Amino acid sequence: MDKLTHYRACVQKLLTEHSHFKNATDDVETLLCFDTERDHYQLMRVGWQRLHRVYHTVLHFDIRDAQVWLQQNTTDSDVGQELVEMGIPKEDIVLGLHPPYKRPYTGYGVKVSSELC
Amino acid sequence: MDKLTHYRACVQKLLTEHSHFKNATDDVETLLCFDTERDHYQLMRVGWQRLHRVYHTVLHFDIRDAQVWLQQNTTDSDVGQELVEMGIPKEDIVLGLHPPYKRPYTGYGVKVSSELC
Repeated sequence: MDKLTHYRACVQKLLTEHSHFKNATDDVETLLCFDTERDHYQLMRVGWQRLHRVYHTVLHFDIRDAQVWLQQNTTDSDVGQELVEMGIPKEDIVLGLHPPYKRPYTGYGVKVSSELC
Repeated sequence: MDKLTHYRACVQKLLTEHSHFKNATDDVETLLCFDTERDHYQLMRVGWQRLHRVYHTVLHFDIRDAQVWLQQNTTDSDVGQELVEMGIPKEDIVLGLHPPYKRPYTGYGVKVSSELC
């Protein structure tokens, strides 16, 4: 399995596992959104709790330039560490939810390209 | 073109058009996320404006049971009407961002199945 295929499999496996942590109810859905063409991967909660709208992204990863970007994490889980334990080196994980100036001090990677962050 | 193929094409076209309304900057990306397998379609803004995190879904549609569900709309655009003008009948559009009790009074559809809303 090449590196990119492995990273895609890891991200999808992690999100699928986390999707089991919270049960769907009649009115709130746990939703997986995998755009394998553009390499965007999300776990969301969408629906209604009585009159309260539930709409948020629980976890979101992007893959770009052979790096996995963590864009959103509203869980208590250290998903960066989970990816490391799946065999992704820290320099290939970028904590996009930290501002760019902080990333060199996170112990994880920084972006390798001149593309948008 | 069958109905479902047409609805998918409409939703993707609408989101792609709206993705041009706001320019990407060096640090904030306009992101299209199309999960054509699970039928989730989003337009997002993700990045940083100096030290301010930008992370939100601008527009989000799901397709289920041959109905187009509007799950999020942070624009001023009447995207329901835009879908109608593309040829989708109102009863096949559900405004999921309104609570279920309100939907019969929106002029749009209500869910046809017993699945999650």
